Amino acid sequence: MQNINELFLDHDSPAGRLVRGLAAFGAATAGQLSKSTGLGRSTVSTALTELRDAGIVIDVDAKASGFGRPSQLLSLSPGSGRCAGVLLGLGEIRIVICDMTHAVLSDVWIPIRRDYTPEEAADQVRDSLTSQCQSLGITIADLLGVGVAISAPLSYDGKVLNGDVLPTWAGVDLAEIFSTRLDCPLHAENESHCGALAEMTWGSTVGESDFILYKFDLGVGGAIVRDGAVVRGVSGSAAEFGHIVLDPDGAYCRCGNRGCLQTYAGGYHLIRRAEEFSGQPVTIDQFVERAREGRIGYRRFIEDAAEKAGWGMGITSSILNPPLFVIAGKLATIGKAFLEPLERSFNRHTLQHPDLPGVSAPRFVVAKFLGNDDTVMGAVALVLRQHGRIVSPAT
Amino acid sequence: MQNINELFLDHDSPAGRLVRGLAAFGAATAGQLSKSTGLGRSTVSTALTELRDAGIVIDVDAKASGFGRPSQLLSLSPGSGRCAGVLLGLGEIRIVICDMTHAVLSDVWIPIRRDYTPEEAADQVRDSLTSQCQSLGITIADLLGVGVAISAPLSYDGKVLNGDVLPTWAGVDLAEIFSTRLDCPLHAENESHCGALAEMTWGSTVGESDFILYKFDLGVGGAIVRDGAVVRGVSGSAAEFGHIVLDPDGAYCRCGNRGCLQTYAGGYHLIRRAEEFSGQPVTIDQFVERAREGRIGYRRFIEDAAEKAGWGMGITSSILNPPLFVIAGKLATIGKAFLEPLERSFNRHTLQHPDLPGVSAPRFVVAKFLGNDDTVMGAVALVLRQHGRIVSPAT
Repeated sequence: MQNINELFLDHDSPAGRLVRGLAAFGAATAGQLSKSTGLGRSTVSTALTELRDAGIVIDVDAKASGFGRPSQLLSLSPGSGRCAGVLLGLGEIRIVICDMTHAVLSDVWIPIRRDYTPEEAADQVRDSLTSQCQSLGITIADLLGVGVAISAPLSYDGKVLNGDVLPTWAGVDLAEIFSTRLDCPLHAENESHCGALAEMTWGSTVGESDFILYKFDLGVGGAIVRDGAVVRGVSGSAAEFGHIVLDPDGAYCRCGNRGCLQTYAGGYHLIRRAEEFSGQPVTIDQFVERAREGRIGYRRFIEDAAEKAGWGMGITSSILNPPLFVIAGKLATIGKAFLEPLERSFNRHTLQHPDLPGVSAPRFVVAKFLGNDDTVMGAVALVLRQHGRIVSPAT
Repeated sequence: MQNINELFLDHDSPAGRLVRGLAAFGAATAGQLSKSTGLGRSTVSTALTELRDAGIVIDVDAKASGFGRPSQLLSLSPGSGRCAGVLLGLGEIRIVICDMTHAVLSDVWIPIRRDYTPEEAADQVRDSLTSQCQSLGITIADLLGVGVAISAPLSYDGKVLNGDVLPTWAGVDLAEIFSTRLDCPLHAENESHCGALAEMTWGSTVGESDFILYKFDLGVGGAIVRDGAVVRGVSGSAAEFGHIVLDPDGAYCRCGNRGCLQTYAGGYHLIRRAEEFSGQPVTIDQFVERAREGRIGYRRFIEDAAEKAGWGMGITSSILNPPLFVIAGKLATIGKAFLEPLERSFNRHTLQHPDLPGVSAPRFVVAKFLGNDDTVMGAVALVLRQHGRIVSPAT
């Protein structure tokens, strides 16, 4: 019997496929594993016996499914492997280590100045990860992998595409920066795409294979998920919803154009408006709190933002006709005051509105991850699902 | 050896897969067939021998490929099968019959009043197809299939989705209407999607598996092609580019919303503006001719239309980051006067503009089919590729 590290990276053997299947699900029945891997029931059964004997797979719970004996729920042994998720954010780095049951073992948040260099970040990640691993009695080399979520679009070969949010990172090759510092497989993906992966693994869209995620936070971003995979586009910059141009004469945007959706519905721009209004500094959390309370001014800020948000989503629907929209980000925590005008606006700016018979209007759900957990947990999911670009394969 | 009708519908046998492969390509080498079907070279070779012996496959030409012996180009025997394409358009029905080398054997155009009923159309199609087949010495039952292109979105089960262009057709079940009249397999698809299929089969995107087609004609429509297949969305109304809302306070659109792209860049709306300007009736062809000549007024009409067209395409690019845009429809025949301002506008309304490093800007090509041939030939391609919804399987 191989050890879990080998099985996790083995893309062909039945045991390897089951290990990755369980890693992605957290817990599953033999029947679910047979369905998701495409392996026959008897092959699954034989491989599971081996994996149980090796201490890699354990029985965790029983799941009742109608009549008959409840199906045994299986999981990877918590100790059989660990993986890490890293968020390279705007002014912050966050590093999480999870075990194979998806339990968070270590969670460190490091504030860092806004224009940090890639080398500084990689050093910080190495140092923090080393001590986090140490406290768990392992080394970085023992990790099944490190997933990196970054606040910028990425090319297929792991290069940071533009300096919209992280100006000092444009053109940086993530493999080059991190592989010399981290001695384990690396995966990287844009943070919005990681958010979608987190929702698919732990959140509101478990079992959904087609949806569009819109994240309204400091910026506006998102992800398009089709057939269970994130759509990246030819150069990795698909789903840049924040840069849907709503008014060619609108406010100037960081991308070089004008009137982009995020200049109306992005937290940064809303905060700036709130500060002008109140004459005081306003944080995104204060903004959200005041909007939720329906305070004068703020109610209008959020209504106007929702109007533009619904318009952008309406356009997206006319183009892609998705069955489901997931709304994420801090603005989603405002609740009704944001979501109701958003949905009203959506119906006025899409072909898929309820008045047109036969053209099904999409469902709307609020994401489960509404803070910053989505991105760092999505980075963990990158490793568990091996979805992301492998910027440094295991040596 | 089976006959070609059976092979064409047989989705599993190597011979069946080769027949459909050749039907889609028109002509191909054994190597190309091996690649496109995924069958081994020796399997392909054995099946081709059988198909040659049965008179279904013929050698048509030799293709030089660098050094060595030129590869033999193969085709289905012209007489081995025929298929028909039907366009149900606005005020017209067009019916084409092709042989298996993609040669057009019969092409009939029937003007019909704008608000024709589905029953009238189906009767017309049956009558015309019957006499077209008769003149070729065959019957409708001998056809490998009939592809139907319709100027409306279609649901997955072959229902016409809304009455935007064909108001009398909303909710109509195409299978119900046509299967009682046509005794052969039926396929149906939205006309813009058929246009994309025609470009993939005979036009400017042969061999391209990812592109977005924008058609600027009387209306504005298009198709999203991903991995070689048309993206339909959950209810068949994806790629409704004409209904991208550019101004919530703009002109009222047939879809019930305001300021849709086609109210700026659709031929109907442009003609209306030209008629107001000239005080005379103007046809779409006159409009195109005058715009191409750069006549006063028309030059501005087309510049303004191109400005909005580029804006809509820019938004589409920010959402999907495609490698290639194909521009089709009568407005594309205007040439530079339309295409140059369109591309300038595109760059000002997308994230994928040439000034942002790393975010690759898409290529632009003009479609090969610029008249109405795209839709009816796409309907033929529907049968050849068996891409569309089968609304009435062979009995």
